[in-house]
Amino acid sequence: MENQRIVMASRPEGWVSEENFRLEKAPLPRPAEGEVLVKNLWLSLDPYMRGRMSAQKSYVKGVEIGEVMVGQTAGEVVESRHPTLKPGDKVLTQLGWQLYGATKEATKVDASRAPLSYYLGMLGMPGLTAYFGLKELGQPKAGETVVVSAASGAVGSVVGQLAKLWGCRAIGIAGGPQKCAYVKSELGFDECYDYRAGKLRDELKDIDVYFDNVGGEILDTALARMKVFGRIVVCGTISDYNATEPYRVKNWRAILVNRLRVQGMIVFDWKDRYGEAMKALGGYYAAGKLKTRESIVEGLANAPKGFIALLKGGNFGKQLVKLA
Amino acid sequence: MENQRIVMASRPEGWVSEENFRLEKAPLPRPAEGEVLVKNLWLSLDPYMRGRMSAQKSYVKGVEIGEVMVGQTAGEVVESRHPTLKPGDKVLTQLGWQLYGATKEATKVDASRAPLSYYLGMLGMPGLTAYFGLKELGQPKAGETVVVSAASGAVGSVVGQLAKLWGCRAIGIAGGPQKCAYVKSELGFDECYDYRAGKLRDELKDIDVYFDNVGGEILDTALARMKVFGRIVVCGTISDYNATEPYRVKNWRAILVNRLRVQGMIVFDWKDRYGEAMKALGGYYAAGKLKTRESIVEGLANAPKGFIALLKGGNFGKQLVKLA
Repeated sequence: MENQRIVMASRPEGWVSEENFRLEKAPLPRPAEGEVLVKNLWLSLDPYMRGRMSAQKSYVKGVEIGEVMVGQTAGEVVESRHPTLKPGDKVLTQLGWQLYGATKEATKVDASRAPLSYYLGMLGMPGLTAYFGLKELGQPKAGETVVVSAASGAVGSVVGQLAKLWGCRAIGIAGGPQKCAYVKSELGFDECYDYRAGKLRDELKDIDVYFDNVGGEILDTALARMKVFGRIVVCGTISDYNATEPYRVKNWRAILVNRLRVQGMIVFDWKDRYGEAMKALGGYYAAGKLKTRESIVEGLANAPKGFIALLKGGNFGKQLVKLA
Repeated sequence: MENQRIVMASRPEGWVSEENFRLEKAPLPRPAEGEVLVKNLWLSLDPYMRGRMSAQKSYVKGVEIGEVMVGQTAGEVVESRHPTLKPGDKVLTQLGWQLYGATKEATKVDASRAPLSYYLGMLGMPGLTAYFGLKELGQPKAGETVVVSAASGAVGSVVGQLAKLWGCRAIGIAGGPQKCAYVKSELGFDECYDYRAGKLRDELKDIDVYFDNVGGEILDTALARMKVFGRIVVCGTISDYNATEPYRVKNWRAILVNRLRVQGMIVFDWKDRYGEAMKALGGYYAAGKLKTRESIVEGLANAPKGFIALLKGGNFGKQLVKLA
């Protein structure tokens, strides 16, 4: 047995390409005292990874050239020198884009309650991001209108479903009629607008809460269509990730005119309350009230392809790599 | 006796000019039942008035062509058909750019406690704006760094002084060495940076609260220099008022990266709590802890000149027109 991993070969300028990655072979890591050796089964691909590839300052240190790409994985313990974990346990780790890894930091999950991969999606970081971002920053009241971009994605799909569960009107924004149809008929949003149709400026209106996963022009349009005392949750700026210059927001003055509250959302800030959110999300899922869709690429070698598709909006649902 | 008033003759495109105004004579208004006839002594000039001259939607209806320019005034009751006010009472009204007016809505003030004009400045709307904006939206904690733009102005000067009174480090931004010297030595800010020197990007750092009265490039620079969990109070966008296109903000992503909270501030939202703020501000003033400076033009006919100077940053302190 040997390990395989994908490292960042070079920093992207603008759009990421496959040349920015390199697949390497490496010896199987040995767990030190207190560690487990984990066989990764699923790798989560997320837009934030684009930020980590950049030299620009962000909220967490970036990846250096030659280093393994970061990312959350779900896997199985194959060897343990850890005080409580044992072989066969299913765990979440931050081992990144590789088949195996040794770590002290592994969180056991109950794979009998939900498919393991769901813990990387609606029952994992994306779900928690949706939960705290909407509940604590968006603070929607029953009857209000909640709009979310990237609505068929891992975070957006949970935002809209929670909005409905909490008595709000849920409006999605997604790319293309197929995603929009899914968002409405499968996820149960009240409405979903296809931004590619170019009519958002007219379609969006009277927004109480805008949960933004994309930034750029869609954000700018939403800014101009907020209601007085509206809230904007700034959760992602995917539209900027591949631009060499950031998008420049023209409707800033709407913040003043409509007394908006705009806040940045990073899930790690809510660590102390993950338990509460997991309980709520798990409960909704068990009751059949939370649906998800996964977009799966097979094999570590295809992770760059899957990641690039994600950045271009080519995925449909939570983007995952099946590693084994 | 006859009335004189200034109406909006035409809508400005870009910079306001004197041609946008017209001085008119009119008969003295007669108070109806329940009204007072007020002789205006002071007219307040404020940046928001530029917004009212525009056809663009804002938080309050704008001025139409041929209508009297809006604005707050401080004056004296000369005739009363009002249930409680009597001739000689000093009152605040919204009578606008004119010498006399009849109104039901006049707020009596105690001109023995402070000069009447102060009720248009640090003990009036600008002071209340500073108080609620800083306290409720900025929420500064003792020891934190509060930065305010237009620091020698009516709102900014109170923001910085309150920040000091509440145990914070107060940093001003102002235009020119003379204003900066005043902000530091007279108002007691810890520091004041001259934005015209072009070094703000280096000078500003580790901002906990940024109270923005100007928008544009200064705002954009401050955005990039906020600390994690910083707060931005969006109170004015004077730099945009005379631009035909709004400034486009490039550092939006800082809201996400540093989990900033950005909120719009309009003083009318805090009406129910004006009493609390007036008591606090009056107390600080009586104790010699709140200073102000006035920039006075003489006579109604010079109001347009004073207003244009204000928009260009040519005023120094609270801009007023002495009407009588």
